[in-house]
Amino acid sequence: MRLGIMGGTFDPIHYAHLFIAEEARARFALDRVLFIPNGDPPHKKDYEITPARHRYAMALIATYNNPAFDCSPMEIQRPGPSYTVDTLRLLRRQYPEAELFYLTGVDAVAEILTWRQPEEVLEMATFLAALRPGYDLKTLQERLPHAYLKRILLLGSTPLGISSTEIRERLHQNLPVRYLLPDGVLEYIYKHNLYAAASAGPNVPNARETTD
Amino acid sequence: MRLGIMGGTFDPIHYAHLFIAEEARARFALDRVLFIPNGDPPHKKDYEITPARHRYAMALIATYNNPAFDCSPMEIQRPGPSYTVDTLRLLRRQYPEAELFYLTGVDAVAEILTWRQPEEVLEMATFLAALRPGYDLKTLQERLPHAYLKRILLLGSTPLGISSTEIRERLHQNLPVRYLLPDGVLEYIYKHNLYAAASAGPNVPNARETTD
Repeated sequence: MRLGIMGGTFDPIHYAHLFIAEEARARFALDRVLFIPNGDPPHKKDYEITPARHRYAMALIATYNNPAFDCSPMEIQRPGPSYTVDTLRLLRRQYPEAELFYLTGVDAVAEILTWRQPEEVLEMATFLAALRPGYDLKTLQERLPHAYLKRILLLGSTPLGISSTEIRERLHQNLPVRYLLPDGVLEYIYKHNLYAAASAGPNVPNARETTD
Repeated sequence: MRLGIMGGTFDPIHYAHLFIAEEARARFALDRVLFIPNGDPPHKKDYEITPARHRYAMALIATYNNPAFDCSPMEIQRPGPSYTVDTLRLLRRQYPEAELFYLTGVDAVAEILTWRQPEEVLEMATFLAALRPGYDLKTLQERLPHAYLKRILLLGSTPLGISSTEIRERLHQNLPVRYLLPDGVLEYIYKHNLYAAASAGPNVPNARETTD
């Protein structure tokens, strides 16, 4: 089995995450892609991260109807920060027959030297790195040893310039985010009042004409 | 009533169309947005356009679950090429109380002088023009008379760099397009074998391991 691993904060998950996973599945003949929301991510603490149970629920809602996608709570159930090396070790034990492919952005791969045990990480999984504006193969070549580069394959950049940050900011400003992420995820966000979004959301018919 | 009009070929409709309509609805307090697929578009003939009944069906599937969106067959039912001026005249008769807002891209607005009766068009509707890479306000100012510019409002560019052309090309190459357009539209495309897409689509679990 060729198993893709899509780690991330997913705060919230959106169509660019899903498209990249689908693209990697098709281009690299992956049998499954496992979405693994981070518990307490060691590299991302510049805003208040939504509780893991909500991020996991949103990832589940976004992936359940794709037969090749699955969602794992393994990182959110582990106490303390999640290191990729620990996740990969667990996955190798859980799927001893599987070839592992770790999906991430070129920007994250460029930082791999700062990760815990980067050599073991790269030995356990082939990296599929999605190109991002401002990060290309040259960035990687300048930053990483040659032996590392052999374990990193590039994935074309996504036509979807969506980011979780932009979605959170739009929700804060009560701007619409529909069509940037699955309707079910949006319903979950409104229901649980995440990202300080108005609970009814911006899809309520405009009351302007009737209240003036 | 403030009525948005979203004309287009919609071959096929995708999330960038839907997002732009939703964004315009929120920012300009539109009560409804009416999607009007072109019949035989006078300005776009560089590829074989999908029959209008399919493009209309896809627009319907994509819009039915948004309470502020509607879809009209008025252009596809009219014989011959569709001119915006004719559509706007019909809409003014149909909705005499409505203020009309015509949604389109800056690139299309820049060509408005080549349209049939551009002055009447701009008199009947305010234009909401979405910014596109390579087209900004300056492009418009260089091309259009000042009186025209007053009737054109700009809409921020969409974070979704999706185009119908890219979706058609990906389908031709049997690459995934899921998460670029609603699942229902994709099911319709596969069911009717549009864009020479494989009828089962790329979402069938990969058979590589079992057939090797």
